[in-house]
Amino acid sequence: MRFDIITLFPDFFSSPLQSGLLGKALAKEIAQIHLVNPRDFTTDKHRRVDDEPYGGGVGMVLKPEPIFAAVESVPILPRREIILLTPQGERMNQSLFREWATNFDQLVVICGHYEGIDERITHIVTREVSLGDFVLTGGEIPAMTLINGVIRLLPGTVGKEESLKAESFEQQLLDYPHYTRPADFRGWKVPDVLRSGNHAEIEKWRQQQQLQRTRERRPDLLDRDL
Amino acid sequence: MRFDIITLFPDFFSSPLQSGLLGKALAKEIAQIHLVNPRDFTTDKHRRVDDEPYGGGVGMVLKPEPIFAAVESVPILPRREIILLTPQGERMNQSLFREWATNFDQLVVICGHYEGIDERITHIVTREVSLGDFVLTGGEIPAMTLINGVIRLLPGTVGKEESLKAESFEQQLLDYPHYTRPADFRGWKVPDVLRSGNHAEIEKWRQQQQLQRTRERRPDLLDRDL
Repeated sequence: MRFDIITLFPDFFSSPLQSGLLGKALAKEIAQIHLVNPRDFTTDKHRRVDDEPYGGGVGMVLKPEPIFAAVESVPILPRREIILLTPQGERMNQSLFREWATNFDQLVVICGHYEGIDERITHIVTREVSLGDFVLTGGEIPAMTLINGVIRLLPGTVGKEESLKAESFEQQLLDYPHYTRPADFRGWKVPDVLRSGNHAEIEKWRQQQQLQRTRERRPDLLDRDL
Repeated sequence: MRFDIITLFPDFFSSPLQSGLLGKALAKEIAQIHLVNPRDFTTDKHRRVDDEPYGGGVGMVLKPEPIFAAVESVPILPRREIILLTPQGERMNQSLFREWATNFDQLVVICGHYEGIDERITHIVTREVSLGDFVLTGGEIPAMTLINGVIRLLPGTVGKEESLKAESFEQQLLDYPHYTRPADFRGWKVPDVLRSGNHAEIEKWRQQQQLQRTRERRPDLLDRDL
């Protein structure tokens, strides 16, 4: 899987791409990440990437030319998606990560900044995606989220054992509570059933907990059409 | 505003905290970020932070002691929240960021990892928060999101002008389309109204666009109780 990240802040990515499980996956070349700065595709001497908005208003708008040029500078793999990160897009979720990890060779990811990007960028984009209903200083964190969530699903990133586990959102339910030693921590005890050795009862308890938590905290997940 | 980030991967944060607008805000000491590694609070010679789950199953669970010790090692400011980042929590959104930026002096943020954290951590936590309906390798990206979204709202981070702008989600509507020069880019033209100089018409067009986009893409925002 190849990622091309179109970003005005390539330095943002240096430590997150070296850290933890993701760092290990990239060292194993499970995926390749290329950082492309639209500023390198400006043609004026001030290397301007933004300009004032038509119609007035505060803030600056990212110009279309340097971003188109940046996107057009990267090689084209057969199955590719060009993603614009914007609060106006559909929200990222596990099934989108799964779809990208399974059906794509290349994800080109455009990080927005300032007040916004010139709307004409949408002509080159195949999907507009949002991290959530909030405003950040730029698209770099949403891009890191997407990179992490997709690479985590690629073969070889997590151990075979763990990858077989039924996880939150793969089955549309929240996870059950986890406990480890000590059995008694400051007077708070591990539920007896988990120490019973009765695997059928443990399985039943965990399923009940999943259903109960999902009902209490996220009833919308249960209502959702699958 | 003081942030204490409880993380097994403090190195993750080095470049994102130096980059862009957030890096500038931290250089101006608009907020202070302290990284605390639970591994520094282990007492055994292998410095183990995880152990096998009670009741069996794959993966490891983060032990309660090192995390409690890490949280208890940080100074206590008057108005503080202790946040656990977990897919089981309520979802982050702009009003939560606004509440934290306005009403709190200190956010202690616990990043999960591996299969999960021992459930007894919830006894020290005041709020469980999720970035979205997906699985990541850890809580570091959700923590960065929260840091970025909250610090962005603190006085002095963004210019006075920009901060006055009515933004996506502050008014429960998606943003209108932005355009900048050139007026004609590859045959795609800026809408005439934005070049008309008629400010009342421009304002009307932008409001219409906001409403239409929100209706088409995110009707749930319009249905939401305010």
